Amino acid sequence: MEKHYLGIDVGGTTVKFGLFDAEGQLKEKWDIPTRVEDEGKNIIPDIIASVKEKGFADKISGIGTGIPAPVSKDGVVQGTANLGWGYKEVSRELEEGLGVPVKAGNDANVAALGEMWKGGGKGYHNGICVTLGTGVGGGIIVEGGIVNGANGAGGEIGHILVNDQETDSCGCGKKGCLEQYASATGIVRMARQMIGETYGSEKAKSEELTAKIIFDRMKQGDAMAQKIGGQFGYYLGTALANVAVVVDPEVFIFGGGVSKAGEIVLELVQKYYRDTAFFACKNASFVLAELGNDAGIYGAAKLMLDK
Amino acid sequence: MEKHYLGIDVGGTTVKFGLFDAEGQLKEKWDIPTRVEDEGKNIIPDIIASVKEKGFADKISGIGTGIPAPVSKDGVVQGTANLGWGYKEVSRELEEGLGVPVKAGNDANVAALGEMWKGGGKGYHNGICVTLGTGVGGGIIVEGGIVNGANGAGGEIGHILVNDQETDSCGCGKKGCLEQYASATGIVRMARQMIGETYGSEKAKSEELTAKIIFDRMKQGDAMAQKIGGQFGYYLGTALANVAVVVDPEVFIFGGGVSKAGEIVLELVQKYYRDTAFFACKNASFVLAELGNDAGIYGAAKLMLDK
Repeated sequence: MEKHYLGIDVGGTTVKFGLFDAEGQLKEKWDIPTRVEDEGKNIIPDIIASVKEKGFADKISGIGTGIPAPVSKDGVVQGTANLGWGYKEVSRELEEGLGVPVKAGNDANVAALGEMWKGGGKGYHNGICVTLGTGVGGGIIVEGGIVNGANGAGGEIGHILVNDQETDSCGCGKKGCLEQYASATGIVRMARQMIGETYGSEKAKSEELTAKIIFDRMKQGDAMAQKIGGQFGYYLGTALANVAVVVDPEVFIFGGGVSKAGEIVLELVQKYYRDTAFFACKNASFVLAELGNDAGIYGAAKLMLDK
Repeated sequence: MEKHYLGIDVGGTTVKFGLFDAEGQLKEKWDIPTRVEDEGKNIIPDIIASVKEKGFADKISGIGTGIPAPVSKDGVVQGTANLGWGYKEVSRELEEGLGVPVKAGNDANVAALGEMWKGGGKGYHNGICVTLGTGVGGGIIVEGGIVNGANGAGGEIGHILVNDQETDSCGCGKKGCLEQYASATGIVRMARQMIGETYGSEKAKSEELTAKIIFDRMKQGDAMAQKIGGQFGYYLGTALANVAVVVDPEVFIFGGGVSKAGEIVLELVQKYYRDTAFFACKNASFVLAELGNDAGIYGAAKLMLDK
């Protein structure tokens, strides 16, 4: 029988499944709710039951899975913010339940692997995924493999220090992290600050603002929105120029909610990147992510296909 | 017969050779002058002749070599600043001359691999070598392998932008690169600037200054020298904190002329690193390089031992 692989993306709300053939074609996908209550004790049994119920348990040769936490090489997590788990031997529990080899990785890194394999980074071997959402996440792929790092903090580019004059604190406890300027939250923060300085604190507090609203205003030519876009581009572009001299990627791939504003995001970032990058790294490509919420199941399957 | 490997470090002045057994023990080392004249056309024939003359040609199973230029995966360089070479198929020419497989890499990256294998980073798998010499060089090792990058610029951490207010230019053409504050040249530059501001430009120009003199004054408690040390530590420590969230190393290894000042270098850098690093990366180790000029031959041999 032809070999098949499962890619499983464990999120705080849903667990997504993708069944892939040995050539990496997605044959079927589905999802189930993530039951995080009772310290998430049902999550792994639910996954095992769902795979069996689908009739795939005898069909698959291996499973890859992305977990929202740092994951050790042997598939162990020490705790998760969103799943309720403390110490958990993810790979072992799934292997025992389904009788096939399992590989596990951090969800952001696994999604980056998916985008490099079948998404915006297809055809490249060295790339950096930049996820611009509530925070700023990243995933570094070198020669086709994930850079996890010694503590699972590889690719945590949202916490690059970009402004040592910042007075507001980042969620991580530091001040002046990239995330404070380049995430959806950070863009709104900068806007409220600028509105406050110009129109006073009442208007700064009351105005309805999202990153989307600000990018829409930018496109319409609003001067204040364009100033915010300039700051976003400056901090993100110069930070990525600094990342480039560390790992020298061929491509930067932009995903997450903020990236839905489209080409304007690439333009704002590239302008400052090209200005400040080391000459050898100047010509890296800038592209948008293509797989959306499926990046995780693709990358998870790839973990096992690479084995 | 027992297998042996050659590590060859091609420098602008000398070519260093190391003969290693299969366990990685250095059995013999020697060097020859590098003849860079006539576009360096004698360099490779000289290497081949030296290996044959030593009687090692039939004894070795493979050769690794470090070259002062970006090197492609198949051992080709497009040009070198110090050897006179333009396009050169280094691996192929050595393979044809000596009849054994050859692997080639960039000299700084290869030296980093050597330090990780048998020097300051022994026992670690993820580390960053920081070479503080005339410039600031770097080599990134992830899971035991070199991060070369798409353009051979992996680990070029001397060109991280650390000060966007700088008015002096770096050798690379940008302004505010780490190298302008953390290299031997950069330390002297900061000192002359500070002396100029305090005592006038005549004294700034005429005073004999080296990085060693400045570190010696620091140790003696000289206030101005300590201020320079603070700037050195701040720029290098915060830059390395930013590198840490990209690749999350276990260890930073400091080599090059400036590192000969010893523990004081580690102390100055660690202070600012621990202050600014992302929490997961805070506990990385800081050590001095141990192999000195032999790091290159060790790393070169390791290239082939890893094959």
